[in-house]
Amino acid sequence: MDYVNGPGRNHLFVPGPVNIPEAVLRSMNRNNEDYRSPAVPAMTKTLLEDVKKIFKTTTGTPFMIPTTGTGAWESALTNTLSPGDRTVSFLIGQFSLLWIDQQQRLKFNVDVVESEWGQGANLDILESKIAEDTAHTIKAICIVHNETATGVTNNLAKVRKILDNYRHPALFLVDGVSSICAIDFRMDEWGVDVALTGSQKALSLPTGIGIVCASPKALEASKTAKSVRVFFDWNDYLKFYKLGTYWPYTPSIQLLYGLRTALDLLFEEGLDNVIARHSRLGKATRLAVEAWGLKNCTQREEWVSDTVTAVLVPPHIDSTEIVKRAWKRYNLSLGLGLNKVAGKVFRIGHLGNLNELQLLGCLAGVEMVLRDVGYPVKLGSGVAAASAYLQNNTPLIPSRI
Amino acid sequence: MDYVNGPGRNHLFVPGPVNIPEAVLRSMNRNNEDYRSPAVPAMTKTLLEDVKKIFKTTTGTPFMIPTTGTGAWESALTNTLSPGDRTVSFLIGQFSLLWIDQQQRLKFNVDVVESEWGQGANLDILESKIAEDTAHTIKAICIVHNETATGVTNNLAKVRKILDNYRHPALFLVDGVSSICAIDFRMDEWGVDVALTGSQKALSLPTGIGIVCASPKALEASKTAKSVRVFFDWNDYLKFYKLGTYWPYTPSIQLLYGLRTALDLLFEEGLDNVIARHSRLGKATRLAVEAWGLKNCTQREEWVSDTVTAVLVPPHIDSTEIVKRAWKRYNLSLGLGLNKVAGKVFRIGHLGNLNELQLLGCLAGVEMVLRDVGYPVKLGSGVAAASAYLQNNTPLIPSRI
Amino acid sequence: MDYVNGPGRNHLFVPGPVNIPEAVLRSMNRNNEDYRSPAVPAMTKTLLEDVKKIFKTTTGTPFMIPTTGTGAWESALTNTLSPGDRTVSFLIGQFSLLWIDQQQRLKFNVDVVESEWGQGANLDILESKIAEDTAHTIKAICIVHNETATGVTNNLAKVRKILDNYRHPALFLVDGVSSICAIDFRMDEWGVDVALTGSQKALSLPTGIGIVCASPKALEASKTAKSVRVFFDWNDYLKFYKLGTYWPYTPSIQLLYGLRTALDLLFEEGLDNVIARHSRLGKATRLAVEAWGLKNCTQREEWVSDTVTAVLVPPHIDSTEIVKRAWKRYNLSLGLGLNKVAGKVFRIGHLGNLNELQLLGCLAGVEMVLRDVGYPVKLGSGVAAASAYLQNNTPLIPSRI
Amino acid sequence: MDYVNGPGRNHLFVPGPVNIPEAVLRSMNRNNEDYRSPAVPAMTKTLLEDVKKIFKTTTGTPFMIPTTGTGAWESALTNTLSPGDRTVSFLIGQFSLLWIDQQQRLKFNVDVVESEWGQGANLDILESKIAEDTAHTIKAICIVHNETATGVTNNLAKVRKILDNYRHPALFLVDGVSSICAIDFRMDEWGVDVALTGSQKALSLPTGIGIVCASPKALEASKTAKSVRVFFDWNDYLKFYKLGTYWPYTPSIQLLYGLRTALDLLFEEGLDNVIARHSRLGKATRLAVEAWGLKNCTQREEWVSDTVTAVLVPPHIDSTEIVKRAWKRYNLSLGLGLNKVAGKVFRIGHLGNLNELQLLGCLAGVEMVLRDVGYPVKLGSGVAAASAYLQNNTPLIPSRI
Repeated sequence: MDYVNGPGRNHLFVPGPVNIPEAVLRSMNRNNEDYRSPAVPAMTKTLLEDVKKIFKTTTGTPFMIPTTGTGAWESALTNTLSPGDRTVSFLIGQFSLLWIDQQQRLKFNVDVVESEWGQGANLDILESKIAEDTAHTIKAICIVHNETATGVTNNLAKVRKILDNYRHPALFLVDGVSSICAIDFRMDEWGVDVALTGSQKALSLPTGIGIVCASPKALEASKTAKSVRVFFDWNDYLKFYKLGTYWPYTPSIQLLYGLRTALDLLFEEGLDNVIARHSRLGKATRLAVEAWGLKNCTQREEWVSDTVTAVLVPPHIDSTEIVKRAWKRYNLSLGLGLNKVAGKVFRIGHLGNLNELQLLGCLAGVEMVLRDVGYPVKLGSGVAAASAYLQNNTPLIPSRI
Repeated sequence: MDYVNGPGRNHLFVPGPVNIPEAVLRSMNRNNEDYRSPAVPAMTKTLLEDVKKIFKTTTGTPFMIPTTGTGAWESALTNTLSPGDRTVSFLIGQFSLLWIDQQQRLKFNVDVVESEWGQGANLDILESKIAEDTAHTIKAICIVHNETATGVTNNLAKVRKILDNYRHPALFLVDGVSSICAIDFRMDEWGVDVALTGSQKALSLPTGIGIVCASPKALEASKTAKSVRVFFDWNDYLKFYKLGTYWPYTPSIQLLYGLRTALDLLFEEGLDNVIARHSRLGKATRLAVEAWGLKNCTQREEWVSDTVTAVLVPPHIDSTEIVKRAWKRYNLSLGLGLNKVAGKVFRIGHLGNLNELQLLGCLAGVEMVLRDVGYPVKLGSGVAAASAYLQNNTPLIPSRI
Repeated sequence: MDYVNGPGRNHLFVPGPVNIPEAVLRSMNRNNEDYRSPAVPAMTKTLLEDVKKIFKTTTGTPFMIPTTGTGAWESALTNTLSPGDRTVSFLIGQFSLLWIDQQQRLKFNVDVVESEWGQGANLDILESKIAEDTAHTIKAICIVHNETATGVTNNLAKVRKILDNYRHPALFLVDGVSSICAIDFRMDEWGVDVALTGSQKALSLPTGIGIVCASPKALEASKTAKSVRVFFDWNDYLKFYKLGTYWPYTPSIQLLYGLRTALDLLFEEGLDNVIARHSRLGKATRLAVEAWGLKNCTQREEWVSDTVTAVLVPPHIDSTEIVKRAWKRYNLSLGLGLNKVAGKVFRIGHLGNLNELQLLGCLAGVEMVLRDVGYPVKLGSGVAAASAYLQNNTPLIPSRI
Repeated sequence: MDYVNGPGRNHLFVPGPVNIPEAVLRSMNRNNEDYRSPAVPAMTKTLLEDVKKIFKTTTGTPFMIPTTGTGAWESALTNTLSPGDRTVSFLIGQFSLLWIDQQQRLKFNVDVVESEWGQGANLDILESKIAEDTAHTIKAICIVHNETATGVTNNLAKVRKILDNYRHPALFLVDGVSSICAIDFRMDEWGVDVALTGSQKALSLPTGIGIVCASPKALEASKTAKSVRVFFDWNDYLKFYKLGTYWPYTPSIQLLYGLRTALDLLFEEGLDNVIARHSRLGKATRLAVEAWGLKNCTQREEWVSDTVTAVLVPPHIDSTEIVKRAWKRYNLSLGLGLNKVAGKVFRIGHLGNLNELQLLGCLAGVEMVLRDVGYPVKLGSGVAAASAYLQNNTPLIPSRI
């Protein structure tokens, strides 16, 4: 029995891993090669240059680590902090929770700022903590840019402003796993010290590269950070960067070629256009949810996410059933509700290599599933609301004008 | 400039070539190999056995010719007929027209039975011709099962009945290019003498195999048919079938593996389920067209096609603009109106490896395009009508129950 | 049981279909698309321009027909000749025999000039026929540039010279299936009227495109040629060339992209370098054969082929056993002896995307197989002879200098 | 400029990453999918069962971590040991050196037993240390099964015997990166507590999975091991194993499918046959080296490696030039000499999906390169020696008998 086969395509709307463009699949369809030949370093060099653009940094140093987002987190933390260091971290959903758990297990002294799930990071509390911390005991602010579990996007510019207002030297560490390449992110402008993402999110690759970008200040911190690390140690990378061979251990050749193509596609479309597309698809999704008479898990407009929408279901419905049924009947993959919102929300991921009609197909599918589980949605209502918006806002495909 | 790249997937709704399942793409992703080794004949043998199932024949002899549908036509005709032979052929749209043109250029004496485009083959006229032809001057009835240009499906059982009623020995040649594997087709039951299809249609492969299946009577006819032929000659194939090496010239290794996988997927889903799926998607499309206030080019319910719907646009709209705009703005590929119906219809192909949400995405796209070109469709209306039907009629995916 | 799997790669040394470069496989790894969109015609246009270069013509008109070499032959003949036309054709091996058979079945009056297998076309006889034919009853000279069955390359420049000397207007039709892109071929310079090749030979693609190139004189001839044809009719192509849509029927999208990449690789390496590489590999193979104490089926140096070497085995050995054993034990695919030379020769194809070490691996394999079947070859002897030559003549890979 | 393109295939003979079978490439050529659907856990379950077979364990617990060999090392160490723990570790080449460096940076108290490069682990010293350590201060023996830098295979059975003789409870940790699936390895029989390998070695996959297998004793140790770890923590995996969802974070879907196919191929060939094939290719390589008049870096027969041969070059030759020239002229990728043996050895990797003729092509290439750099090797000599052995010892391919 092959669960995978169903007639037609799988409609992949989990918030990662996301749809891979055919051109990227093609570029990865290759044999291994000697990563110590001149070919791989030459390509790596261009990747390291180009990958900075997705962080909007010119001064950062990127590391393309053969790992996942969880590993990228660990790399960000262990290279900049020492056991016992105080961090301020915001608990607003499952992924921020997991990052906090990691911080605690890595022996940092985590000052957790919790919000209700569906709300953004409480920056008022941050401000008060920063204001109080004249001794600069806070070594780092750790914040998830976009909480994938609840569809909440935090305001990073404001975090920077708070730190600046109080001239606080804390490092500013950002999990951009489900935001970078999809939601506006400005490493240099916002003074982010470490930003990170994973290949399987808005970059639309398979899982397998955790991309971590360090500011000069973060690199400086890494010289004294006492957290034990080897695999994730930036210093090993830096040594090989100097040698021009780039890799302290074996990278995935295939993913490097895939990343090359993914970046080429991204720059061909234009990073700003990519972000505008995500904004368009996010808005269309939220209009559909509204038309269905359902609520967005995100409690305020300022926090809405353009990469994932967590939809609250009525109390008598189990959102897990929605996800199961979507997959079993319509070959539609939606995101489960996690932890506190398990059974209460289902999630529509709308990030990565995706277009308007793919989303509308998904929304039409969600409508059918909602009826399947007994919610009396008016069929076509969400699609109508979304397409009214999209018909007014979708540009021509530039290569086809 | 690469026309191909747009963000997200291309929504391919031309009535061929159609979407290829990922599993088929995978299976074709291989180097060449020696087609004279034992491996290729062993696979060919299973293909020849299995391909008969899509024609619903146990007595037919299939030929998998490295050509297109046009070549398959030529193979069907030249192997069974001699120059000067009288054929009855039905002109109901662009593809039947092209086949008739071929018959004439191959020097047959074609008795053309024309219908208005949008109507099916006029079988009353056939009946009168057959009734009159007591001398059996008619050597073959040539009929397109599904006319792709107008979305018209002809009633083949009725053709057989007419022939039987008059005990007329004419060969019964059927173009099943856009029907076989998608619309009920029964070679043995209906006494079809030659049936043919192309790999890029409901089989969901690339173009490159014209599959022709000959009844014992057709094989017998090939022994005396005087049409000049070499590349398309069945006899060369039959010689190599006997030898167990199967190929008179080099086949495409990749397409053979692709066909193997395509058949496996087909049988896994079940041919009857595949046909039911096409029926479901065809019905849903027609409901959407109705909801949009537009007319189907097909003039009567008895002729509606489950693989392609040709939609008539209001006189003040140029359907070519619809197709252009769909491609340029929404990455949606629709079929143009051809010849007599150029500018007047656009076509939605709904055949091959396709599912409900793909179709609904397409329908949502058509709605936006219709508004783009000035037709005041109610957004969501077609999707609502289609999904109301689909929500009631789509089974669970068997492998996921 | 999967015959295909053996540990490691298959060593494909049949003279077609040949090894496909990974880059070509990648480029073909794609879904279907609408061949009536602007994308496919735009690419087709560049292909038609570039494909002329492999024929070394600026005045020829190419046709990329979805067929095999056999179909390309049929296209060349039926578009230029009428039933009853006299052709001179050279029987020197299995493929020239098959082409002659086709000519006869297409009702031409074939004047067969036979040579012993292992010899080239007898151009002295051609000259006497041309000299005698002052009435110009000979309408076409049909010649296989490289006879794949015996490894014999004919001298085309000399054919042209004979025709010119006698100012004979016969059409000059060339089967370049196993020569073009590998052995020096000059359509314009040699006044070839129709030249043809197949995608699975030196172009290193899958089977599926028969490329036929017609001189202005051939195109002119096509206007009056009376051979019945539809699928292979150039005129249908020319009509669509004028329209800018290029295709009278559905092409294989995947093969077009593959051809694009194959040509790119060819031009990147440089056509003259590609030919030099084939010359180098051909020479090395012949040196190995000599070192083994075996004879080349090709009887004179002037005819030796740089794309395939047919090796004569001693009378007590069955060459079929060599081919079987190579495949069963060493995953090495060699070419069988065909027809008159069945059991007497085995063939080493050395054309297409191939390099020195691949060939040396093959030669080492042949040595082991020869011992397996009882021929007391000195192991390493052929490899030594070949590598002595190659070590002196292989240039650095240009992209790596 | 694309360094990668050369005519023909790259001959990949570095000791990892190695050649990927076409069937594995095919299976990985797929879009992402939801790893929380039932499909991925169902496949993961079979993988966890089957992967135990390559370790020859029934009691071990495997972890398929999205990382490299370096990460697998870290996982093995941090889950079983606490900072300050005493380990005995053998320095015999570059990879054992790097593992020791990791152990030291992870704050273990490493008792380094150094041998000359080219020698195996000094087990006499191990024995004396174990004998002395009646207080059981040694917590773990860390040994590289096959040192990839020098082509040295250590005797693991003997290590176990020493521990048993003294009833010493030290954990037995084995780096099997370049041995497992290629050289006989018996986790249960030899009482190995943690064994590990990487996907890009004998499994013939891309880089990206570090497979670590823990004995019950190792799992027990993980409960009290105090090394800080999160990404590499077995406990997170064990939690998800219990839930039946298997993944604490996102795996690479593509690599899982690739691993499935790699294991299928492995079991189809038979693990013992795979090991015999490596033994055959290793022996053939060493015979060639001898025939060339060169020395194996491995100083004694008992240590020779069946996966990589490090060849010592004469003092006046720089082995780096050999590697460069092989790549630049013959598209042959050999392994560089590393660290202490840089410039002194080049390495031929003969592991993974490889067969006899591939190896012989490589050996012929090495002969030409040796002459290129001025070493007067007799061309064909190594190939002759190797093929004499192979011709006597290569079995028929089972699927083709």
